[in-house]
Amino acid sequence: PKSYRIVVLPGDGIGPEVVAQATRVLEIISDVSPDLQLNLEPHDFGGCAIDKYGEPLPESTLKACQEADAILMGSVGGPKWGADAKVRPEQGLLGIRKALGLYANIRPANFASDSLLAYTPLKPEVAKGVDMIVIRELIGGLYFGPRKEQGVSPDPDSAYDTMLYSVPEVQRITRVAAQIALTANPPLIIHNIDKANVLASSRLWRRVVVETLEKEYPQLTVDHYLVDTAAMLIVASPKKLNGVVLTENMFGDILSDEVSVIPGSLGLLPSASLADAPTLPSSSSFKPTSGLYEPIHGSAPDIAGKGIANPVGTILSAAMLLRYSLGLEKEAQAVEAAVRKVLDDEAIGGFGIRSADLGGKATTIQIGDKVVEVLKGL
Amino acid sequence: PKSYRIVVLPGDGIGPEVVAQATRVLEIISDVSPDLQLNLEPHDFGGCAIDKYGEPLPESTLKACQEADAILMGSVGGPKWGADAKVRPEQGLLGIRKALGLYANIRPANFASDSLLAYTPLKPEVAKGVDMIVIRELIGGLYFGPRKEQGVSPDPDSAYDTMLYSVPEVQRITRVAAQIALTANPPLIIHNIDKANVLASSRLWRRVVVETLEKEYPQLTVDHYLVDTAAMLIVASPKKLNGVVLTENMFGDILSDEVSVIPGSLGLLPSASLADAPTLPSSSSFKPTSGLYEPIHGSAPDIAGKGIANPVGTILSAAMLLRYSLGLEKEAQAVEAAVRKVLDDEAIGGFGIRSADLGGKATTIQIGDKVVEVLKGL
Ligand SMILES: CC(C)[C@H](C(=O)O)[C@@H](O)C(=O)O
Ligand SMILES: CC(C)[C@H](C(=O)O)[C@@H](O)C(=O)O
Repeated sequence: PKSYRIVVLPGDGIGPEVVAQATRVLEIISDVSPDLQLNLEPHDFGGCAIDKYGEPLPESTLKACQEADAILMGSVGGPKWGADAKVRPEQGLLGIRKALGLYANIRPANFASDSLLAYTPLKPEVAKGVDMIVIRELIGGLYFGPRKEQGVSPDPDSAYDTMLYSVPEVQRITRVAAQIALTANPPLIIHNIDKANVLASSRLWRRVVVETLEKEYPQLTVDHYLVDTAAMLIVASPKKLNGVVLTENMFGDILSDEVSVIPGSLGLLPSASLADAPTLPSSSSFKPTSGLYEPIHGSAPDIAGKGIANPVGTILSAAMLLRYSLGLEKEAQAVEAAVRKVLDDEAIGGFGIRSADLGGKATTIQIGDKVVEVLKGL
Repeated sequence: PKSYRIVVLPGDGIGPEVVAQATRVLEIISDVSPDLQLNLEPHDFGGCAIDKYGEPLPESTLKACQEADAILMGSVGGPKWGADAKVRPEQGLLGIRKALGLYANIRPANFASDSLLAYTPLKPEVAKGVDMIVIRELIGGLYFGPRKEQGVSPDPDSAYDTMLYSVPEVQRITRVAAQIALTANPPLIIHNIDKANVLASSRLWRRVVVETLEKEYPQLTVDHYLVDTAAMLIVASPKKLNGVVLTENMFGDILSDEVSVIPGSLGLLPSASLADAPTLPSSSSFKPTSGLYEPIHGSAPDIAGKGIANPVGTILSAAMLLRYSLGLEKEAQAVEAAVRKVLDDEAIGGFGIRSADLGGKATTIQIGDKVVEVLKGL
């Protein structure tokens, strides 16, 4: 059988609870597929690693991640490792992104079920039908450009960060957006977001996006929005951005979080961070790309240990892992279908298969149980 | 009588149409106040100045602005002066901000009337009661830091912008937020927004905000949100940010536009860009600050010349002008009350006193007529 090594980083807060349900799902997939063996290997990462080793990303964890076919993460951080601490869990997150070259962050946002429209802060008619995939450049721009802290000469009274982009950095993330656009038929529209009317880096960005698409993907359609306009549209008429939303690191941090509250609960949404452009799982040229998969929500310390966190975002992240890193499109779709079924009260007819963030009473484990049950029946 | 020189920059697109109604309002205020004389002086600015003089901010316009007590602007730009053009209207806008030292952009966002809840994209229960004043630093950060375009050595394959802040730059904008917080009783909470978990400039920013408030305004309350969290909150539970929202230039560009779609129409909202911290209009130490006042909407080329643009944002900008640059608090409140009355169908009882952006049929001039009529009766 085909054997894969999957590193699991449960992390902090509700991380271990939600990851446990996603690994159950992966194990079922492994069990029911005679040709497939998924070896799940837990490692310390984040705040819990700081407690044990004094650093959020220990050498042994990094090494395992580098050798793995894919990584499944929960969440990191918490008040225990505060903003003022010298060593912080976020540093582990930025460190692993950079060390593994995970330059492409992919965040789909859509409604698993129309019944979830009850939970969006938008008017249902504004939100219904929202279906975006945000592609955020993840290891460039202000996050990793040259910087200077306050207190450092020559001007100790100032500090700066640099939004720096090179042509190859923009080319490769544009190709990711293009490949994702091509996973639909007809292909999705690409909405490029920048601030080309003010920033030099955005002018480079836009030029390279346009040139790369014209040269390599002439069949695709791209339009352009300024980041401030995009921030308005996401609230006022988000469907105008349906398709692929392509943007740089800092803008992507802000806009992807803004988008993420539309589908009703952060607990529902998955993400993938890839080290290469995904190829079409259905095509003969499919080549798996290594990646890190995690729900978009944080460690939610206020509900940690209570067993009431929503595991759906993590389970859907496992589905993305099956798709992009293992090329198991059929299995990925089966997991997504199972989640949709569980979330949709009417289809199953029971009360209590939604977690507290969606006004329900189901526990994390009960939701995992139900997804596994449905998955076995598919 | 006290005499003031007010430079009027109608600009492009719907700019002249909406400015015409706001200047009528200022003239009425001048007419009914025996001690007051407002001298309105129109000048070319923006795309129309490019057409006439080849530059968006002609020397004569800049000089008039520098000598004026305040500036009232419409809007600039349009497809005629495209993103690819060498000389663009936006350059005039950035140029006038820098030349006049307008470092403090102030954008209130609230519901003039509950009946406007019909037009917000948010669920009414989420939007009702939103009442924020966004304070955006306007002449620092990525917009004006050192930059390099693509094609320039040493690395022609890259481009960058610099998010640079100095301690005095952050001190002065913090004082603006504090002064605005103090215009309410009890004072408003200040919500500081940054990305201190990643950016060196944000760490300086947060440190200076905290120190300045502790030292100079110990009576005020401040809390802190990361910019990505703030982008979520503005959609999911905007009232958590009620009060003063303080942030740097690029974050403020994005977040203030995101906030601006909540009250139902961009056409409703005013802004002020000040060269100094406003003092309390009611206090004996009041000192007028020079400033530029403009609606937050753009030049809306699609409806320009049709006479259907909403002049309310510009009229409310004129009210801010009366308040901050002339110290005429009573007059400012009278204009705001008149606008509220006109917008509120039920109070006046007529149909047709709302413009097309609010589902009405009133023309720009009809709305101006009504505001003037109400103002005369107050
Ligand atoms: C924790 C933080 C460094 C991180 C980021 O800003 O990238 C987070 O907000 C995210 O979006 O994954
Ligand atoms: C036109 C543009 C340069 C400007 C900005 O980004 O500041 C505009 O978006 C604004 O917010 O006033």
